Amino acid sequence: MTLKDKIGACCPQGLGLCVGLDPVIAKMPEKYQTALSPLLEFNLSIIEASAPYVCAYKPNIAFYEAHGSKGWDQLKKTIEAIPDDKLVIVDAKRGDIGNTAQAYAIAMFNELKADMVTVSPYLGKDSLIPFLNENDKGIFVLALTSNPGSADIQELTVAGSHVYSHVVKMAVSLNHNQNVGLVVGATKPEILQEILEISDGLPLLIPGIGAQGGSVYALKSALEGYSNPAFVNVSRKIIFASQSDSHEGDVRESAMKISDELAG
Amino acid sequence: MTLKDKIGACCPQGLGLCVGLDPVIAKMPEKYQTALSPLLEFNLSIIEASAPYVCAYKPNIAFYEAHGSKGWDQLKKTIEAIPDDKLVIVDAKRGDIGNTAQAYAIAMFNELKADMVTVSPYLGKDSLIPFLNENDKGIFVLALTSNPGSADIQELTVAGSHVYSHVVKMAVSLNHNQNVGLVVGATKPEILQEILEISDGLPLLIPGIGAQGGSVYALKSALEGYSNPAFVNVSRKIIFASQSDSHEGDVRESAMKISDELAG
Repeated sequence: MTLKDKIGACCPQGLGLCVGLDPVIAKMPEKYQTALSPLLEFNLSIIEASAPYVCAYKPNIAFYEAHGSKGWDQLKKTIEAIPDDKLVIVDAKRGDIGNTAQAYAIAMFNELKADMVTVSPYLGKDSLIPFLNENDKGIFVLALTSNPGSADIQELTVAGSHVYSHVVKMAVSLNHNQNVGLVVGATKPEILQEILEISDGLPLLIPGIGAQGGSVYALKSALEGYSNPAFVNVSRKIIFASQSDSHEGDVRESAMKISDELAG
Repeated sequence: MTLKDKIGACCPQGLGLCVGLDPVIAKMPEKYQTALSPLLEFNLSIIEASAPYVCAYKPNIAFYEAHGSKGWDQLKKTIEAIPDDKLVIVDAKRGDIGNTAQAYAIAMFNELKADMVTVSPYLGKDSLIPFLNENDKGIFVLALTSNPGSADIQELTVAGSHVYSHVVKMAVSLNHNQNVGLVVGATKPEILQEILEISDGLPLLIPGIGAQGGSVYALKSALEGYSNPAFVNVSRKIIFASQSDSHEGDVRESAMKISDELAG
């Protein structure tokens, strides 16, 4: 199945929920904190509780690397446990020169079996191309992120335009295999709309809703009239919905509520 | 010992050789290809052969992640084996929002025990600050990289200046603990000189010599008159100096030759 077809199958409404699997031991219910594989066991409970309301899962690799090789193993097993009808996005924000980018592509696609990986555009086209050889694997390129620091470099003005616009044009130019998407934060809906205008329908990964303060209403209003498939990522508000040992109900309810807001 | 003092001790001439530990199994001598821990055993032979001529070692984490958790374990053991009088730079080019950057800082400094880590500036100041809390650990911020794609984003013109100049100014502004450096490629010496002018003496990590085509002569000429400590990275030309099972002599000779060129 091509990536384009998988995205269509995972996100049939064109706008769907992505859950960020970003485990932090101190924030988990106690029974996971003392488990042998806390990241994995916590994630399995989140996946089981949330799956009916979710189009994609997005583990951010930082939270696993903080635990070294044991973390890496638990990330790999987490990905193996994600149902086949969900898109697996590894949030890695990698970006390196050609032969090194090739090694990262092997790490993300062959070793971890991600469908897509987030990448940073700072090193330019040749740092992204090694991820684009197969039409069933692809990238989300960071265009405009959801943090305050996005203003420092991304929003610099370049010849009447902005750095992020150049990144979007670069991403569009690399989409020969229909496997390039964009990361665009929900915290600045007016810039999101500006990016949609030049995005040529590329799929979007949208962080910033929930703990980071972006509003679903403003997001939906910005997306209106565009056909880009959009995965709206929420992490903390779902996975840490409760610290009770029977957190599954709260996780499910939080996922359902946000999924309903996106659909409604 | 503060990072500033360690840099001074590792690189007393102000300009020294950094060896990139970027192992690729197919390029190793045969005896390592069939070893139980090929990355580690290959690296140990490189470190032993090259140490007398080297100020710093820089493993690029991509070449380890391509082997999953086994690769991560071999990276950790490689770093443990690097002599204490060498600077350990993990080339990770990480860059993520605050709470995630904090998890990466734990991965790089606490778990892998790196002295410094390379970071990407695309997400702005708040993505770099979590790496800067301790004065014995620090970052090299990507300013101008050595690959052709550096022109795509880094060299865009912003208000009569360039994106890379804004990155340099941002890095300088974060140097309260004297633990911020810059990555500046050797492939464009004229831009290196422009960056030196505004770099406030920050330490430099300089890739691009050797397989990537940068010249030591042009580099030294650009650095003349500046006091920035500079680690010149060479990887393939040293670590793959020969594919013979007794490659140590060729590795040593290649490291010695480049170290002499830098000193001479």
